[in-house]
Amino acid sequence: MKLEGIIAYPITPFHPDTQAVDVDALTITLNALLEQQCNAIVPLGSAGESAYLSWQEWQQVAQKSIEIVNQRVPVMLGISELTTATAIQKAQKAEELGADLIMVIPVSYWKLNDQEIYDYYQQIAASTKLPIMVYNNPATSGVDMSAELIVKMFQEIENICMVKDSTGDIQRMHKFHELSQGQLPFYNGCNPLALEAFCAGASGWCTVAPNLLGQLPSQLYQAVKDGDLDHAKALFYRQLPLLRFIVQGGLPKTVKAGLNELGFSVGEPRKPLQHATPLEVQQLKSLMALAKQA
Amino acid sequence: MKLEGIIAYPITPFHPDTQAVDVDALTITLNALLEQQCNAIVPLGSAGESAYLSWQEWQQVAQKSIEIVNQRVPVMLGISELTTATAIQKAQKAEELGADLIMVIPVSYWKLNDQEIYDYYQQIAASTKLPIMVYNNPATSGVDMSAELIVKMFQEIENICMVKDSTGDIQRMHKFHELSQGQLPFYNGCNPLALEAFCAGASGWCTVAPNLLGQLPSQLYQAVKDGDLDHAKALFYRQLPLLRFIVQGGLPKTVKAGLNELGFSVGEPRKPLQHATPLEVQQLKSLMALAKQA
Amino acid sequence: MKLEGIIAYPITPFHPDTQAVDVDALTITLNALLEQQCNAIVPLGSAGESAYLSWQEWQQVAQKSIEIVNQRVPVMLGISELTTATAIQKAQKAEELGADLIMVIPVSYWKLNDQEIYDYYQQIAASTKLPIMVYNNPATSGVDMSAELIVKMFQEIENICMVKDSTGDIQRMHKFHELSQGQLPFYNGCNPLALEAFCAGASGWCTVAPNLLGQLPSQLYQAVKDGDLDHAKALFYRQLPLLRFIVQGGLPKTVKAGLNELGFSVGEPRKPLQHATPLEVQQLKSLMALAKQA
Amino acid sequence: MKLEGIIAYPITPFHPDTQAVDVDALTITLNALLEQQCNAIVPLGSAGESAYLSWQEWQQVAQKSIEIVNQRVPVMLGISELTTATAIQKAQKAEELGADLIMVIPVSYWKLNDQEIYDYYQQIAASTKLPIMVYNNPATSGVDMSAELIVKMFQEIENICMVKDSTGDIQRMHKFHELSQGQLPFYNGCNPLALEAFCAGASGWCTVAPNLLGQLPSQLYQAVKDGDLDHAKALFYRQLPLLRFIVQGGLPKTVKAGLNELGFSVGEPRKPLQHATPLEVQQLKSLMALAKQA
Repeated sequence: MKLEGIIAYPITPFHPDTQAVDVDALTITLNALLEQQCNAIVPLGSAGESAYLSWQEWQQVAQKSIEIVNQRVPVMLGISELTTATAIQKAQKAEELGADLIMVIPVSYWKLNDQEIYDYYQQIAASTKLPIMVYNNPATSGVDMSAELIVKMFQEIENICMVKDSTGDIQRMHKFHELSQGQLPFYNGCNPLALEAFCAGASGWCTVAPNLLGQLPSQLYQAVKDGDLDHAKALFYRQLPLLRFIVQGGLPKTVKAGLNELGFSVGEPRKPLQHATPLEVQQLKSLMALAKQA
Repeated sequence: MKLEGIIAYPITPFHPDTQAVDVDALTITLNALLEQQCNAIVPLGSAGESAYLSWQEWQQVAQKSIEIVNQRVPVMLGISELTTATAIQKAQKAEELGADLIMVIPVSYWKLNDQEIYDYYQQIAASTKLPIMVYNNPATSGVDMSAELIVKMFQEIENICMVKDSTGDIQRMHKFHELSQGQLPFYNGCNPLALEAFCAGASGWCTVAPNLLGQLPSQLYQAVKDGDLDHAKALFYRQLPLLRFIVQGGLPKTVKAGLNELGFSVGEPRKPLQHATPLEVQQLKSLMALAKQA
Repeated sequence: MKLEGIIAYPITPFHPDTQAVDVDALTITLNALLEQQCNAIVPLGSAGESAYLSWQEWQQVAQKSIEIVNQRVPVMLGISELTTATAIQKAQKAEELGADLIMVIPVSYWKLNDQEIYDYYQQIAASTKLPIMVYNNPATSGVDMSAELIVKMFQEIENICMVKDSTGDIQRMHKFHELSQGQLPFYNGCNPLALEAFCAGASGWCTVAPNLLGQLPSQLYQAVKDGDLDHAKALFYRQLPLLRFIVQGGLPKTVKAGLNELGFSVGEPRKPLQHATPLEVQQLKSLMALAKQA
Repeated sequence: MKLEGIIAYPITPFHPDTQAVDVDALTITLNALLEQQCNAIVPLGSAGESAYLSWQEWQQVAQKSIEIVNQRVPVMLGISELTTATAIQKAQKAEELGADLIMVIPVSYWKLNDQEIYDYYQQIAASTKLPIMVYNNPATSGVDMSAELIVKMFQEIENICMVKDSTGDIQRMHKFHELSQGQLPFYNGCNPLALEAFCAGASGWCTVAPNLLGQLPSQLYQAVKDGDLDHAKALFYRQLPLLRFIVQGGLPKTVKAGLNELGFSVGEPRKPLQHATPLEVQQLKSLMALAKQA
């Protein structure tokens, strides 16, 4: 399974009163997202507050999302667990529920060394037939995996078959390309690097942006693919202020605020995360309007 | 309740086979620790792998530890939770079980801003009568709380009454002293800073060291208290190589390895954390012998 | 004066025995460099060991380089001075000698604040009619100028008309573009970022690479300009291992070693900088061969 | 020659009009400094703007300072040079002028590796009989020397006999002590670390503080020496706000502003460094008053 293009991330809506998962809002926002020319859907990613959900809630969102997508595009489920045992539990559940792939990030409390990371992935991979995307995002997980380690896992562990890197460091992508002789498909998870990552050879852009920007991310991908660099550049700079804003503000907060502004009713992030301030909402609206206009 | 001196941290032993909490080993190691002139005991801290335990296991360790200590010294329970709701759940359980204090660290996935941190502590504090130690350890939690924020919470939130800082930055301790005009009791959680933190006015040293070094930590505290700086210095440099080693290797791994060497049978850390390598065990034995000898 | 494309940096050769500037070697290497399709020449840059030269030597290299280039392409002289007075002295000398532009980097010992940097550039600019390229390279100068400050100087100080950024941070380039509404021409000084900087809209690549790689850098520039991203990517990855190597090893050391291997006789960098080790020379030869072959 | 206690740093006064060295002001401020119970004097340190002076000026300040001190305490001259040759030139001049010691910091433009640093010191040491203090201050020099390298140079190069570390990292001092088995005398150059460095075994405190705080620094040293930790702590916290302020503002700027306030007339730092703003002067006065009062 080779993914290309826009790998889109839904958020997880909560009921304003009960804070429970809001399945109706999930259905509506996920269907809306699927109209934005996305090449795959990743429920339960960082933006989906995967780490903040109970085991029951995680299963509920996983099952419902697979059902809603209904094979229109591949579904990859996000797994962010502190212990190997709970990660395996989710990997097996993902397979059982009919997910197409899983994305796994090794959340840490105590720092992990390379051997511990390797064995973590190896044991999860051994527990499922699903293809695995290694997800590197030290800002959230506390673990920074080197390109060397990731390429080694790709070469040695059967169902590890791609990597998403959210460090925003373009040199990492160069290393994935070089160390694997171009064999390891890499994906960019840092929104303000979208243009250059594609130029450096990224297979895809993992992003929440289509929730707020519609088909603009997909158009950027197409422009690069068509070799129209000037158009790609124009499309990128048009989206960049918003991309930077949502990254700096934290995705669950800003994307939920944006969706609420767009008329969806998705609630707030889970506490201690808070909703956007009125000032932030105002800025967000301006940036969304600006991107549409341009 | 004012704590002073050595605030000791037990580990959480697991059965080698089942990986379940080993209550017998907990009893033996905790009783051994209580013989090392500790002024308080903190089960379920970072070293106790608090973040890696299930809710059931956390309650089990909390209850059993309180029972074992049996009011010989105060018991402070560690709480490290991603969501406000689960942190409150633990705070209330701690009170119900008869803990004397709680130590709370705001573990993060998405970065928290000051308002989010403040409200997190405020809501936990409102849910319990127990005094709270604010615990700052960005290396494990991913959140670095400023001295300004911590002093503000100390001044405004009733049952926040002390802070443990593990950054190893002595300037933070200066700021606690200055910003609170000497009112906020601060505790050092960075082992290789033990001597200087006491010199700068720390009320206590939060440490696993007595597990492996017996009464040496307590003797260091006494020497500083007695104004015998030369003796304090000698005691500190004698312990320092081991203190540095256990911090660099990760406390659960190294302290468990050391306890196993001392004849206790405490199992291994929970996966993905791994046990110490034979080389590391060898180094640990040398450093423990060196500290005893000197 | 708008520069575009490859802005090439010669080294400053020293006599092996006397350590004086070797004018013959300068003539030969500079003429060789001019055959590599360079759009401008910058003597006395970081790679030219500008900061290590006496005032006499700086003048000698400046004068001789202008004479050798003989108006084939524009000549921009590098100025890296700790004090405003000595920077002005060089700016005026550059104008007197017939340079076309100057590139100025605010070397620091004590950190400079924004006002100090602004006044430094303002006073230098007031002392000369030459157009000025602001050069930001915190790794060598100890000062990191924000994009906001640089754009402000571009807008307010008449002869400041372009910026070279060597941080390797592509987000800086985005900010130059955004903050100046596309008006400020920016140049990339970080070799391993060559491809993506052009994709993001850089006007040029400031580089020593043509000394060792001939016309490959120019071909990369052309490929991007022609919209042939696949060819650009191939050309970039072909050069990247060498580009990374010379940056990591330090340009004066590695480029001089490479030129010596190519049959030029340019001596060694000035002490305390040392020549490449035999192992480094061997690696360099392999990487140069690899880039040619591919 | 073993130095202990307060190693005091004068500033270099400039004439307000000509910006030339003001020898009269130098005489007055240096004599005033010598009344503050200093155990040694270091003209031409970082605070003395050594790096900003011409070769003529450096010699002038060196000669005059040695004459003024007139053997009341040892004189150590600061040398901060980019090239080995100019550093040797100054080392030999220092010896010729009758200095007692030299303090050498390897200023960098291109980063230096360990071999380059070692050879730099080795060649300077070979050029003079004067004892050398290795000075580590990456914030100004751009080079961070490891404790391992410094101890190795201390053990292998004859006239290297002490180290001043200004990183503010107390763990460096622990390493000097451990790696040299207590043989290498180390000095603290980070003012806000004054108390703890003494507690960890520092032989002295390298500081400009007596210029503004009179005998308070010396009293702190005495209190630690006398084992009166409570008094030392009180003295330290009394000085700390001012110490932090002058470090954050940059020593030449803040100390000159303070001396001007005290009635000395020492001019301003050399451009691009600027004088303190009126607000900064106001803060400085408050902090000086506070320290005296307390």
